[in-house]
Amino acid sequence: MTDPILNDREITFILYEFLNTQKVLSRARYAEHSREIFDATIATAKTIAEKYFLNHNAKGDANEPVFDGKAVTLIPEVKVAWDHFSEAGFFAAHYDFDDGGMQLPEVVLRASMAYFNAANIATAGYPFLTLGAANLISTFASQAHRDTFLAPMQDGRFAGTMALTEPGQGSALADIKTIAKPADDGSYRIFGNKMYISGGDQNITDNIVHMVLAKIEGAPSGAKGISLFICPKFLVNPDGSLGERNDVALAGLIHKMGYRGTTSTVLNFGEKDGAIGYLVGEPHCGLKYMFQMMNEARIGVGMGAAVLGYQGFRASLDYAKERPQGRKPSNKSSDSTQVKIIEHADVKRMLLAQKVYSEGALAMCLYASELFEDSHHAETEDERQCAAQILDLIIPIVKSYPSKYCVKANDLAIQVLGGAGYTREYPVEQYFRDNRLNPIHEGTEGIQGLDLLGRKVMANRGQNFAQFIALIQATCAQIEAGSICHQYIAPMQHACELLHTVTIKLTQALAQDPDVATANATVYLDMFGQVTVAWIWLRQAVIAHKALTTNTCTKDDNAYYQGKLQAAKFCFDWELPRIEAQAELLLSLNRVTVDMQEDWF
Amino acid sequence: MTDPILNDREITFILYEFLNTQKVLSRARYAEHSREIFDATIATAKTIAEKYFLNHNAKGDANEPVFDGKAVTLIPEVKVAWDHFSEAGFFAAHYDFDDGGMQLPEVVLRASMAYFNAANIATAGYPFLTLGAANLISTFASQAHRDTFLAPMQDGRFAGTMALTEPGQGSALADIKTIAKPADDGSYRIFGNKMYISGGDQNITDNIVHMVLAKIEGAPSGAKGISLFICPKFLVNPDGSLGERNDVALAGLIHKMGYRGTTSTVLNFGEKDGAIGYLVGEPHCGLKYMFQMMNEARIGVGMGAAVLGYQGFRASLDYAKERPQGRKPSNKSSDSTQVKIIEHADVKRMLLAQKVYSEGALAMCLYASELFEDSHHAETEDERQCAAQILDLIIPIVKSYPSKYCVKANDLAIQVLGGAGYTREYPVEQYFRDNRLNPIHEGTEGIQGLDLLGRKVMANRGQNFAQFIALIQATCAQIEAGSICHQYIAPMQHACELLHTVTIKLTQALAQDPDVATANATVYLDMFGQVTVAWIWLRQAVIAHKALTTNTCTKDDNAYYQGKLQAAKFCFDWELPRIEAQAELLLSLNRVTVDMQEDWF
Repeated sequence: MTDPILNDREITFILYEFLNTQKVLSRARYAEHSREIFDATIATAKTIAEKYFLNHNAKGDANEPVFDGKAVTLIPEVKVAWDHFSEAGFFAAHYDFDDGGMQLPEVVLRASMAYFNAANIATAGYPFLTLGAANLISTFASQAHRDTFLAPMQDGRFAGTMALTEPGQGSALADIKTIAKPADDGSYRIFGNKMYISGGDQNITDNIVHMVLAKIEGAPSGAKGISLFICPKFLVNPDGSLGERNDVALAGLIHKMGYRGTTSTVLNFGEKDGAIGYLVGEPHCGLKYMFQMMNEARIGVGMGAAVLGYQGFRASLDYAKERPQGRKPSNKSSDSTQVKIIEHADVKRMLLAQKVYSEGALAMCLYASELFEDSHHAETEDERQCAAQILDLIIPIVKSYPSKYCVKANDLAIQVLGGAGYTREYPVEQYFRDNRLNPIHEGTEGIQGLDLLGRKVMANRGQNFAQFIALIQATCAQIEAGSICHQYIAPMQHACELLHTVTIKLTQALAQDPDVATANATVYLDMFGQVTVAWIWLRQAVIAHKALTTNTCTKDDNAYYQGKLQAAKFCFDWELPRIEAQAELLLSLNRVTVDMQEDWF
Repeated sequence: MTDPILNDREITFILYEFLNTQKVLSRARYAEHSREIFDATIATAKTIAEKYFLNHNAKGDANEPVFDGKAVTLIPEVKVAWDHFSEAGFFAAHYDFDDGGMQLPEVVLRASMAYFNAANIATAGYPFLTLGAANLISTFASQAHRDTFLAPMQDGRFAGTMALTEPGQGSALADIKTIAKPADDGSYRIFGNKMYISGGDQNITDNIVHMVLAKIEGAPSGAKGISLFICPKFLVNPDGSLGERNDVALAGLIHKMGYRGTTSTVLNFGEKDGAIGYLVGEPHCGLKYMFQMMNEARIGVGMGAAVLGYQGFRASLDYAKERPQGRKPSNKSSDSTQVKIIEHADVKRMLLAQKVYSEGALAMCLYASELFEDSHHAETEDERQCAAQILDLIIPIVKSYPSKYCVKANDLAIQVLGGAGYTREYPVEQYFRDNRLNPIHEGTEGIQGLDLLGRKVMANRGQNFAQFIALIQATCAQIEAGSICHQYIAPMQHACELLHTVTIKLTQALAQDPDVATANATVYLDMFGQVTVAWIWLRQAVIAHKALTTNTCTKDDNAYYQGKLQAAKFCFDWELPRIEAQAELLLSLNRVTVDMQEDWF
């Protein structure tokens, strides 16, 4: 493999050809930046990821964190990786200069983070969770709490977690039972149990700052009664030094299928006098705050899934190029030399599918990051709003398409390697196991489908959805007659029409019978994802075609762009036609699942 | 869960309602048998499987076999399980009374074996491999070799393996490099390396009999130069006692994603003077012999996959019935009680899909066993031939459909459990990991596709295929007007027509350009599988409808048959329509994969 993690050509293509990352340089916010700084940031991430994260990806999988009843021990490489991540300034990179940050644009940071995920998604979990928790504090907490908790998170002394899920409720956050009782000093005492808390304990940082969802005693029921608290593992003294151990106890570690290097914990809050917690922002606004961070978290999950899909693609590609086996069907001579398996059409199918899924997912997630960037920092309010609306609409797709299809990509990577792929001597089965978490956490596929159909497509009176379709139409409109991409205009427009028809049908049905209308929301989610990724590939094909016809391409670039064209063709010939059957099912308001009775199983 | 492994109601339905297992009792061969004996055999298997196999399924996964450089050590439970399997007579059950067997019909034994697979597929691997190796010896070896090796395999003292694969050739058996040099005493000296040999070493039997494919020095090249040898771990003295260690050495264990309790080995033959091997049958006929056993082996893989799919289905069903979470979309009140997740339409979708895949696959594999039985023991030569031809045609489907769709079922089982499904505290992720081997071994999906399209559908001048379609038409013809199954006649017939059209197109193309015609053979395989399983479900629905309308059903039976009808509806509404897009792709002789170039990736 040329690159052990990701592929610089691919990332450069996405950032500077597929996306228009250089445009942000004209914004006042990035006046002190340059393409060179962006590239250097990514190069730094790549170097650290290759040197300190990749080195223990398999080792961390085979040597899970251990809890001896008192403390958790990780393999020592995780701490070294954390320290290098921290020393390079990545904990603060996205903050403003005034807040000690590097004021780097989201899309560049997201591309940088991709290298850590690609190298070792389990170890990358610790800093990524910390970045998320720090963002919550930075955005919603008081200055005093920012001083106490955010600063040491920015310099890597404290880690962070998101403590949402409880044993009894899973995805249904409205039903959490953790209670916060007001104390005399303005703080709270927290009582309850949290489960599946990633990074909930470890031995790499001095302290861990849990962002805990809990209900203040007497709060309204349901989602409207949830508040957000800072609840550190160790209390922090006024001078910033560590104080007593807070009443948060690790009940145990959960052993997972993959992602094994990231501790998954059961935490007990308040087994003694109550864990001391500090309210963030206003009471009862916790879920709102959490959801304002959800877009980033969900792009992050999509990105992690995409990157693992891509790693599997590249690993199986390398294997297929080197492994001789069998002959083409037209060659019956057993005396002839065996061909490399990449010459078998069925192996090319599995590689092309992986390419379509993983490069499509990578481009999709970085496009979402561009929208995120634009929603905050585009020149005009109109541009910012438009970006925010499109992003809001497609977040369920950005989370779910990579999570579903890049797990499928990893499955195909195993199949390309055959028996070898099934062994732990090759990395692909670990990619699969690690990636299998992604369709579950940060909202399962089912939750994303309900979010898309039940909220997102109807938001803003359907205007966000209309805008999105208009974007696809605009791509079609810019394709010149005679372009090789012209063949995709009709299927792309047909797909838009189908999606539109289905959307009208389902949203109208929602008013009459929400249970039936949403019954097949996961199919709708998948159909929407197929249309979106076809558009992503169409855009890539348009760029590739332009580059091939107008530039004097190098030999390498020529091959690269030809690959993009062929992958786009695969997407339109093999993937997109599946939406026909989906549309038919959805338009019929199929009731098979709704009508199924428990005792019939 | 009512039944920890499988479900007696389901097995009874398949054997005695879906299939006509009782019909074999009219055959002279089974004059001494009865339904009671069949049921008692299955009950014995179930008891042993529950008691001695199920108990260490998770333990065997977490505690892989260990090789200290001298010997392999398994957890002790495996030996206990082996002994109970042996003592119950299962190593000899399918042999004739004259050969010390119980002369039981294939379909009853296959159903019995299903319980062992369901309880612990890794431990079941050791006896199953032994049964396969013993069959080869029984069918093709000389009486002297049968006396020496078969007898101790039938009483469980010796185990057996299939030593086909080598590091350099994988699926391409024609290219094996292991050499057999004739010795003066009529035996051979074998030199070469074998890889992925399951059960290639262990500490549960006195001896291991390897069935080795090798080329006699000077043999013709390719598949026509392959011979089959018996090559024991320990030589056997004339009196049956163990002699010297043969020159077969364990080079190492391979560590796998799943199936961890079954050793996967690299074996070196002839590191010293050559491993002593005994030719089975004629020289250069090894592959032919092996292929005569292939049908059984491939049904076995399909069955293992089906059973793991079914186990995951039942485990996730139990979880869904007990786990409260969330509310229906029509209920916005957060004060109301949470529903069990089985009430969510999307969970029912995941359970119904699992039901369709796993029960469909189970029925398909036991149907194949019935064909196997009939091909050997049906009354007339016509019946025997017809059964053999249908079986020969559908073997690639029987191997590949369960392997693909029951892995998918396991994936859905994980998703039903959500975060819990991703942990090793629940069994579903192990089912997935164990099952993931099945699309790889005994011929990958790609190999099955080439076998189906390149050989099977054209065999017997297309008559086998025509007969198969006629069977489907016959099922349609027997559906009465007014039956609830009437709605499936048109889609079933349309599917047959599509499959027929596609088959004609592809087989004609084969003559002109085999590389292009076979390029999408895996899609053809999948399409053929969808049509086959739709037929399996149609047959089940016809039976269920009849039972519901003509019998006085118990409440349980009523629910059971309603479930069959609803699953059939799911199959026809959700699964079968996918073949439209597949047919379109195949009819276009799509060249996207063929045209893709290595350097474009």
